[in-house]
Amino acid sequence: MDHITFTPTVEQLNYTFGGAEPVMRIKPGTVLTLWTEDAYGGRITSRDSVATVALDTEDLNPQTGPFWIEGAEPGDTLAVHLVDLTPARSWGASTLIPFFGGLTSIPVSPTLQEALPERTWIYEYDSAAHTLAFSAHGSDFELALPANPMLGTVGVAPARREVRSSLVPDAFGGNMDTPEMTAGATCYLRVNVEGALFSLGDGHYRQGEGESCGTAVEGAMNVTAIVELIKGGGPAWPRLETDTHLMAIGSGRPLEEAWRAGQVEMIHWLGELYGLDRLDAYQLLTQISQVPIANVVDVNYSAVTKIDKRLLPSAAAYGGVHHELRSAAKALGTISY
Amino acid sequence: MDHITFTPTVEQLNYTFGGAEPVMRIKPGTVLTLWTEDAYGGRITSRDSVATVALDTEDLNPQTGPFWIEGAEPGDTLAVHLVDLTPARSWGASTLIPFFGGLTSIPVSPTLQEALPERTWIYEYDSAAHTLAFSAHGSDFELALPANPMLGTVGVAPARREVRSSLVPDAFGGNMDTPEMTAGATCYLRVNVEGALFSLGDGHYRQGEGESCGTAVEGAMNVTAIVELIKGGGPAWPRLETDTHLMAIGSGRPLEEAWRAGQVEMIHWLGELYGLDRLDAYQLLTQISQVPIANVVDVNYSAVTKIDKRLLPSAAAYGGVHHELRSAAKALGTISY
Amino acid sequence: MDHITFTPTVEQLNYTFGGAEPVMRIKPGTVLTLWTEDAYGGRITSRDSVATVALDTEDLNPQTGPFWIEGAEPGDTLAVHLVDLTPARSWGASTLIPFFGGLTSIPVSPTLQEALPERTWIYEYDSAAHTLAFSAHGSDFELALPANPMLGTVGVAPARREVRSSLVPDAFGGNMDTPEMTAGATCYLRVNVEGALFSLGDGHYRQGEGESCGTAVEGAMNVTAIVELIKGGGPAWPRLETDTHLMAIGSGRPLEEAWRAGQVEMIHWLGELYGLDRLDAYQLLTQISQVPIANVVDVNYSAVTKIDKRLLPSAAAYGGVHHELRSAAKALGTISY
Amino acid sequence: MDHITFTPTVEQLNYTFGGAEPVMRIKPGTVLTLWTEDAYGGRITSRDSVATVALDTEDLNPQTGPFWIEGAEPGDTLAVHLVDLTPARSWGASTLIPFFGGLTSIPVSPTLQEALPERTWIYEYDSAAHTLAFSAHGSDFELALPANPMLGTVGVAPARREVRSSLVPDAFGGNMDTPEMTAGATCYLRVNVEGALFSLGDGHYRQGEGESCGTAVEGAMNVTAIVELIKGGGPAWPRLETDTHLMAIGSGRPLEEAWRAGQVEMIHWLGELYGLDRLDAYQLLTQISQVPIANVVDVNYSAVTKIDKRLLPSAAAYGGVHHELRSAAKALGTISY
Repeated sequence: MDHITFTPTVEQLNYTFGGAEPVMRIKPGTVLTLWTEDAYGGRITSRDSVATVALDTEDLNPQTGPFWIEGAEPGDTLAVHLVDLTPARSWGASTLIPFFGGLTSIPVSPTLQEALPERTWIYEYDSAAHTLAFSAHGSDFELALPANPMLGTVGVAPARREVRSSLVPDAFGGNMDTPEMTAGATCYLRVNVEGALFSLGDGHYRQGEGESCGTAVEGAMNVTAIVELIKGGGPAWPRLETDTHLMAIGSGRPLEEAWRAGQVEMIHWLGELYGLDRLDAYQLLTQISQVPIANVVDVNYSAVTKIDKRLLPSAAAYGGVHHELRSAAKALGTISY
Repeated sequence: MDHITFTPTVEQLNYTFGGAEPVMRIKPGTVLTLWTEDAYGGRITSRDSVATVALDTEDLNPQTGPFWIEGAEPGDTLAVHLVDLTPARSWGASTLIPFFGGLTSIPVSPTLQEALPERTWIYEYDSAAHTLAFSAHGSDFELALPANPMLGTVGVAPARREVRSSLVPDAFGGNMDTPEMTAGATCYLRVNVEGALFSLGDGHYRQGEGESCGTAVEGAMNVTAIVELIKGGGPAWPRLETDTHLMAIGSGRPLEEAWRAGQVEMIHWLGELYGLDRLDAYQLLTQISQVPIANVVDVNYSAVTKIDKRLLPSAAAYGGVHHELRSAAKALGTISY
Repeated sequence: MDHITFTPTVEQLNYTFGGAEPVMRIKPGTVLTLWTEDAYGGRITSRDSVATVALDTEDLNPQTGPFWIEGAEPGDTLAVHLVDLTPARSWGASTLIPFFGGLTSIPVSPTLQEALPERTWIYEYDSAAHTLAFSAHGSDFELALPANPMLGTVGVAPARREVRSSLVPDAFGGNMDTPEMTAGATCYLRVNVEGALFSLGDGHYRQGEGESCGTAVEGAMNVTAIVELIKGGGPAWPRLETDTHLMAIGSGRPLEEAWRAGQVEMIHWLGELYGLDRLDAYQLLTQISQVPIANVVDVNYSAVTKIDKRLLPSAAAYGGVHHELRSAAKALGTISY
Repeated sequence: MDHITFTPTVEQLNYTFGGAEPVMRIKPGTVLTLWTEDAYGGRITSRDSVATVALDTEDLNPQTGPFWIEGAEPGDTLAVHLVDLTPARSWGASTLIPFFGGLTSIPVSPTLQEALPERTWIYEYDSAAHTLAFSAHGSDFELALPANPMLGTVGVAPARREVRSSLVPDAFGGNMDTPEMTAGATCYLRVNVEGALFSLGDGHYRQGEGESCGTAVEGAMNVTAIVELIKGGGPAWPRLETDTHLMAIGSGRPLEEAWRAGQVEMIHWLGELYGLDRLDAYQLLTQISQVPIANVVDVNYSAVTKIDKRLLPSAAAYGGVHHELRSAAKALGTISY
C-alpha cells in the first residue's frame, strides 16, 4: 500500500473539477496524506478582514488534486475513505460575503435590496479541548463549540466534457458541504473520465446543516484518505457509508429536487443490498429515512438521505469495502502531524 | 388543573383549521386525553385495501377538535405540550395513493406519466416490544422497526379569515408531518383568532424525515396533551421545545423557502434568548443548526431548524413554560389506556 | 336576460373566496354591472401615501360578491364573460409595500436584508386619450402609457371546505393577476360548492406580465360581465377564451409548477377539441404554445399557457358559449357610465 | 467587412461552451455564413426513429464554432446580429426522449414513474409556403404551421474557467431556447475569456414558448450573422434587441429565479438608457414588462423580460449598434443558399 504525502504549492492549487492537469498518478489503495488550503485561499485572517477587500472571487475554494487513479474508467466507482481530518491552523474563520448565503438575495436570484453588512468571525481552535471559540460582535456573548472537522468538497471530473467550478456540487460530488463528510466516512463516486481526476478541499472545523450564511468555520486541514477503485457500479449520485449509516447525496435546485435525487439513489441502493423492488424500497425508506440538509447556499443545494444501519439487516455494500478501508485505516496507527 | 377526556364521534371529526365550531371550551392549563382517528378515516384496514377505492378524498386527515381556549387572543402564544402518544390500534397502515407523494408527479405539478401502482402495507404493532413489522410485497423481506409515535398535525385557526384543509401545513401549524412532534415536546403556536381553535390528529406510529411516499405508518392514536396559554409573544412560525432541543418549523414551496422561514424564526428566537443581534445569530446558527426535513409531500413542504441545547448557555424560553409542563406531565403519573 | 347593477357598500366588501355570505342570488345568463374597489381599499390616494401607514393589511384586495349562481353544482363550469372594464377613477396608484413584490425578500422566504424604501406612484388617467401618466421620483422622466384595464381577481369558492384570502390565486381562480383578464375574455371556472359563489375585483388600469413590484396601476373599476353556467365539464384549472386565443392558467410554487398545471390543462383542452391523444397534444403544444407569465408576486405564482386560434382548425369550445356571450355583449349596446 | 463562409465537418463540431479550440479567428465586424447541424446530430430522420436507439447522448446539440474574436477581453460586450436563418433541410423533427422534457420526471428530479412512450414527429418544410406540416400519430389530425426559424443556442465561453455542455443555458448564453432568437435580433453577451469563443447552433424551424416536450422542430440551419465587439459594458445576463423590442434573458432554477435575473438585468438597462433610479425602473417595468417564457426543459430554465420600444422614448442602446448592424445586414442584399 503506497502512502503519499502531498502539500500543494499555491501554483498547484486548482479551482475546478475537470479541466486541470493531475498533480500525480496514484494506484488504487494509495494512502494520501494531504494539506488543503481553506476556501478563502487563506486570505481571511482576522476579525477585521473584509471579504470584498480580501478575497479574489475568481480563486475561491482551492482544491488539492486532482489525482489520476490508475485504471479508473468511466462507469467505475471511486471509494474515498477519510481516515483523519485535523485542523492545520489554530483558528478558523467565517465571513459574510455580500450577496452570498442562504438568508440574502443572491446574483442568480437577485432582489433590489441592499447587501447585508460585512462581518468576520474568527474561531480560535483549542486542539486540547477540541473546541472552537465563538465571540459575538454586537454583544459580549461567547461560546465554546465542539470542533467537528469535515470536508466541504470531495469530487471527480464531471461527465459530458464539463469543467465545473469548485463552488459547485453535483452528480460528480464537489462542493456538497455536508457535515457527514468527516473522518470515518467512505464516499463512493461515479468515475466519469479516465483516471477519475479526484480532488478534495474546503476544510471546515465545524458546520451546521445548511451552512446558512454561506461559510462554515473555514480552515486549512490536514487530511489522510485512502483512495480505492471498484470496477463498475458507479452510482448516479454520491453515496456515503460510515460504520453506522448509509447515505446518498443529491444536489440541485430547488431543494426538493436535490432531495428527490438522493431518495431515488437510496431506493436503488436498498434494492441492490436487499433485493427490494422499487415500491417496497420506497415504502421502507418512507419510514426510516433521515434527511439532514447539507447546504442551501451553493450553486446547487445538497440534501442527504441517511439510514441508520441498525434498522436494517447486515449487508456488505460494494463487497464490504468500507469495512476493509476502516481496517486499513486503523492499521495506519495514530495519525499525527 | 382540569383533565378532560374526549373521543370524537365520526360526526365530530373536522377536516379544516378554522371554519369549524369548537367541540368544547377549555381553560388554559387543561389536560386533554384524546383519541384521534387516522388520516385515512380508518378506511385502510388490510394489505388488500386500495386507496382509490377505500378513501373519501374529500374527508382525509380528520382532526380532533377544535378546542376554544378561554382568553386566547390574536398575537398570543399557545403552548401545546404532548405528554403521551400511544397507538390506539394493533396495526398501522401506509398506502400509495395515485399522484400523491414525493417521488411521483402530483396534480399541482403534473406530468403526462402514468401513476405508480397502488399498494398497501400493514404494520402489525407489537406493544410489548414497541415495534412495527414491515413486510415486503415483492419479496419475502421482513423487518421489525421501533415504533416512534408522533402527530402529523397540530394547529390553530389561520389568520386573514382563512380556512385551510387539514392536509396543509403553514404558519398556523397544521400538517407539518415532522417526527419531532412526539411525546415530551412543547409546540408554540401563534394565536390568530379569538379562542385559538386548536386541533390535532394524524397519528403516525413511525415516520421517516420527508414522509417520502406521502403516508407514514398511519394509525389511530391516544393522545394526552396539556394546553397552556402565554399572553403575547406569538411566533411567526411554529416553534418546538424538548428537554434537549429548540426547533422552528417553516412550511412553504419550494423547500428552500420553508427552510428560510424556519431559519429566520430561529434567529429571532436566539435573539430573544441571548440578546444576539441578527448577524451574530445568523453566524452562530450557521455553525450549530441541524435541519431534519419534515415533509416533502404535502401542500406545503416543511423543514425543521433544530438546535441542541447543550451547545448553548441555559435559557428559559417563554419563562420556562416547557419545564413547568414537563413537571405537570410527570405529576400525571403513569399514562395507561 | 336579467341585468343587475350593484355597487357594494364598504360593509359588503369581502376579502375571501368561500366563507362569505352571497350578496345576492342570480340566474345563469345574468348581466352584472358592478363597481369594484381597488386592492388598497382606496387608501392610497397620493404620491405621499405610504403603504405601511395607509393600508390595513388584514383588509387587502376587497372583492365584489360573492354571487350565488342558481343551479350551480360542484363539477359544473362557470363562464364569466367580461363585457367591459372602465376605470372608475381619474387616477390609479402603484406602491411599494415592504417585503412584498417580486424583487424583494418576502415573509415566506425571508432574508435578513432591510426592506426596500417605500414609494408611491400616481398615474393620472386620461380617459379621452386612454393613457396613464407615469412620473418618476428620482428624475424628471415622464411617460404616457396606454391604459389596458383588466381584473386581477376572478374566482369562485374553493373545494375541500377551504376559505382562501383574496390575495391567493389557485385552481379556484382568485388573484391570478394576468393582463389577459380583460374585456372580451370569457373565463371558465370549475364550480366547487353549491351556487359557485363567484366574486371579482382588483381592477388594474394597466399591468405588465409578472406584476413585478407587486402592485399594478391599481384602481376602482366599473365592470360589466355576463355570468353563464355550463352543466358539468368543470376544468381542473381556470381557462380563458377570447376571439383570438385559448388559454389555461396554472398557479403554484415554484413557477414551473404553475406552468406545468397550465400546460397539462391545455393538453386536455386540445384533446377535447380535436381528439388528439395526450402525446400528440403535448407535441403540438410544444410548437405553438405561448407562455406569458401572469404574476410572480402573489401567494401562488400564475402562468398562462396561450394558443393563437389562427394556428388551429376552427372549434367551438363549450358548445360555442364564448361566441354566444360575445353576441349578447354586443347586443347590450354601447357601455357608458 | 470580412465575409466568411464556414460549414463544419463532423469532427469540427463542438459540444461545449469553453474548452474547445477555436475553429478560426475573426475580426470584429465579420459577417459569418454558417451551417449548423441539428441538436440530434442529424440522427433523427424519420417517424420511425427512436431517440434511445438513434441518439448518442454524449454528443447532443453540436455547435458551430467557437470563433475567436480578435480583441475581445473579459468584460467586453459581444454583439451577435442574426441576419438570416434559413432551414437547411426539407424537414424538421421533434422526438420524445425518455425522462427529458417539461411534462415528465427527469433525472435531476426523479420520480419512480415509468417514462413516457417514445414517439417522433417529422415536419415536412414547405419552403415556398414557409410552413411545417404536423401530422398526429394517434389520429388523422394534420395541420400546417408557419415556420419561424430560430436558434436555440448562442453563447460564449463561461467565466471562472468553466466548460459547460451545450445543453446548458446560463449567464454566458448557451441553450436558452427562446423563439426571440430569430433573424433581425442582436444578442449582447458578456465576454468572459480572451477571444470570447463564440458559438451557435440548435436550429429550430419553429418552437413554442417553453419548448414543452424538450425538442422543437429541430433542423439543420443556414445562418448568417454579423459579429461585433463593444469594448466594456458586458451585461450580467444576455440581452436581445430587435427593431421593436428590448429583452433580457435570465436562466436558472427554479423558474422564478430565471425571471428575477432577467428583470433585474432589464432594470439596469432602463437605468443606463433613461437615467431611472432602480425603484423608478422597477415601477415602470412592473407596468410594461412582457414575460414570454423561453424554456422549462433544459438544465437551467430561461425566461425573457421584454419591453415594446414603442412604449419608451427613443434611445440608442450600446451607441446604436443594433441599428448599424441592421443597416449592414441590409447592405448584404438578398440572402440565398
